[in-house]
Amino acid sequence: MSIITLLTDFGLKDGYPGVMKGVIWSIAPQAQIADITHLIQPQNILEGALTLERTAPFFPPGTIHVAVVDPGVGTQRRPIAARLGEHFFVGPDNGLCTALVEDCRRSNRPMQFVHLNQPQYWLAEISNVFHGRDIFSPVAAHLANGTPLSAVGAPIEDPILISLPKPQRTARGWLGQVTLVDHFGNLSTNLEPQHLPEGEVEIRLAGVRIRGLKRTFGDGQPGELVALFDSEGKLSICVVNGSAAARLDVQVGAKVEVTQLHD
Amino acid sequence: MSIITLLTDFGLKDGYPGVMKGVIWSIAPQAQIADITHLIQPQNILEGALTLERTAPFFPPGTIHVAVVDPGVGTQRRPIAARLGEHFFVGPDNGLCTALVEDCRRSNRPMQFVHLNQPQYWLAEISNVFHGRDIFSPVAAHLANGTPLSAVGAPIEDPILISLPKPQRTARGWLGQVTLVDHFGNLSTNLEPQHLPEGEVEIRLAGVRIRGLKRTFGDGQPGELVALFDSEGKLSICVVNGSAAARLDVQVGAKVEVTQLHD
Amino acid sequence: MSIITLLTDFGLKDGYPGVMKGVIWSIAPQAQIADITHLIQPQNILEGALTLERTAPFFPPGTIHVAVVDPGVGTQRRPIAARLGEHFFVGPDNGLCTALVEDCRRSNRPMQFVHLNQPQYWLAEISNVFHGRDIFSPVAAHLANGTPLSAVGAPIEDPILISLPKPQRTARGWLGQVTLVDHFGNLSTNLEPQHLPEGEVEIRLAGVRIRGLKRTFGDGQPGELVALFDSEGKLSICVVNGSAAARLDVQVGAKVEVTQLHD
Repeated sequence: MSIITLLTDFGLKDGYPGVMKGVIWSIAPQAQIADITHLIQPQNILEGALTLERTAPFFPPGTIHVAVVDPGVGTQRRPIAARLGEHFFVGPDNGLCTALVEDCRRSNRPMQFVHLNQPQYWLAEISNVFHGRDIFSPVAAHLANGTPLSAVGAPIEDPILISLPKPQRTARGWLGQVTLVDHFGNLSTNLEPQHLPEGEVEIRLAGVRIRGLKRTFGDGQPGELVALFDSEGKLSICVVNGSAAARLDVQVGAKVEVTQLHD
Repeated sequence: MSIITLLTDFGLKDGYPGVMKGVIWSIAPQAQIADITHLIQPQNILEGALTLERTAPFFPPGTIHVAVVDPGVGTQRRPIAARLGEHFFVGPDNGLCTALVEDCRRSNRPMQFVHLNQPQYWLAEISNVFHGRDIFSPVAAHLANGTPLSAVGAPIEDPILISLPKPQRTARGWLGQVTLVDHFGNLSTNLEPQHLPEGEVEIRLAGVRIRGLKRTFGDGQPGELVALFDSEGKLSICVVNGSAAARLDVQVGAKVEVTQLHD
Repeated sequence: MSIITLLTDFGLKDGYPGVMKGVIWSIAPQAQIADITHLIQPQNILEGALTLERTAPFFPPGTIHVAVVDPGVGTQRRPIAARLGEHFFVGPDNGLCTALVEDCRRSNRPMQFVHLNQPQYWLAEISNVFHGRDIFSPVAAHLANGTPLSAVGAPIEDPILISLPKPQRTARGWLGQVTLVDHFGNLSTNLEPQHLPEGEVEIRLAGVRIRGLKRTFGDGQPGELVALFDSEGKLSICVVNGSAAARLDVQVGAKVEVTQLHD
């Protein structure tokens, strides 16, 4: 049995993700389908790529991730599929799979990309505006049925990759940024344990300083602004039982510096 | 294996759609269930009917569509089920299935309607306010198990149908209207290719004119107001990487005229 | 086959519920998973407990309910699992299962609680902030696979229970409160049929009086403020085809009194 995940910016009110399930089950009736999210900010490829990175690894080997944040739908941008380690990716060739590709490179897992150019694996009629339904869902369903990657497209070596924001070394520490603001208003950053200086640390963002790290939310007082490592191992700025995004009026891209604490 | 879809105005926060799944799986443990949407505007039967039309055809033959937008729940309005071509509909008798019925008529597919009057296929206790849980979900589950339509109700010939907005001929073209505003702010209309005059076209709505059609979003500049045929073959007014609904402050029902371009 | 339900305050945009499905299907590929809701108000344990009570009973015997509203994640609060009658609960030990426990007590169904202390049934790496992914999902999956409750934890007798708001007797009737405001703006209360006095009743809240009960929405006029028993048998204050919450500017906790009608 195969699992297919769906990650899009399609929203929840119009039925677009439901239609994708109809297409998938028409071809692969046994596929298990999990919605990751359909609330990626419209056209925000970076948010899609980072959300895919945070979620895909928790699915079993063989899972097929259909990701569609696709401002270039219907233009010359290629539809692609890929084998990335033990997972599959199906979607537009616009960088959505960048973080997964970087993870594969870091861990030396094999990768394989194809340009989807075999319309016999698509719906019979193809619109110019909804390849999630017309190309990506049927290709994912065929992969779930065991069709090999090499059958659904032609090998390519040059998938589009985007630039993911990386922390910069500073005089006394590292300068990162907020990469995702979650439902609770927690501010996840691109800073990881290796960016933290020895000794007690200080974190600065949006004009405030946070001294030291907590282990978890409950180690702070309700309403307290705290820093901790989140469930993906990223430094995260949070308000205990509240929203750091609202408190600090901070959005994705805001700078976050970590340094040694100095009084 | 059978597929059951759910389309309601129940929202996502209270657990009503989850309860429907519990009821269905209590009776038909093997049924696959796809949420179409639970964000139909409360009590908006027309929006439900049009959303069902855009989504149902992408499910395989035999799919059972449970649709519940039901301001008359618990009154004299009948609960019904129908065979509409190769699909099934289960829901209130208030016009929700109108667009599917019209599609069947156009393609001469057979239809069959029953008044659900066999409580042995319902939950043991029936509330007056949640027939989605108490009647429609269990009936859908029994249909998924192979119970014939004729067993769950008595034949009727007079399902309620509502009036779907149709384009009108004008002196120089066609006058249609916005029928759905999607998550992206795209304005879908009831105008189709056959309503477009020969030669280059002009589209007017909300005091603006759009000259010509694009093939897809990416053929316009970011921020440009464009017209194109959407994934359901309807003329759609869009802002590239933006929201036409916000730009034009337009809602469902707004008039849209297509004419030949004249300078 | 086993059913697992998910009820959380994780929201829908970040992919957290999707990740839980990945973890579950990695261990129990055949499990059916139903989302109850992921829009419990952040950290609102009472809302989670009441929503669980309204939804869990409609799932078949053997269903495993994973509920995660967990402000104490990573602290000393215990992770627990329970057999509550014919259903299972997995989640934090903070009172989320209170209403289910009270239902079991009322109906004399057996209960069994364990403190989850067997990490071999968890993910290999445990974060301090996402036990829904790292502990509760894998334990639920193992239960779905048939692992007995006694294997995943050590028996406890003292699960945390919270105080659920109960109606109070007044001079002429009962004083209850609004316990849930649903998607439609209907105000569900903790008043049940046994709290209604003989004869015609009067309901007061937020400075208004409602005379008598309707059977269902459609028995009132559109826009009319009505009282009726909702699908869970609770007295509910509603505006026909509208929002009582908006009309009355009322929130959870608002007092509602029922008395005999007096002119």
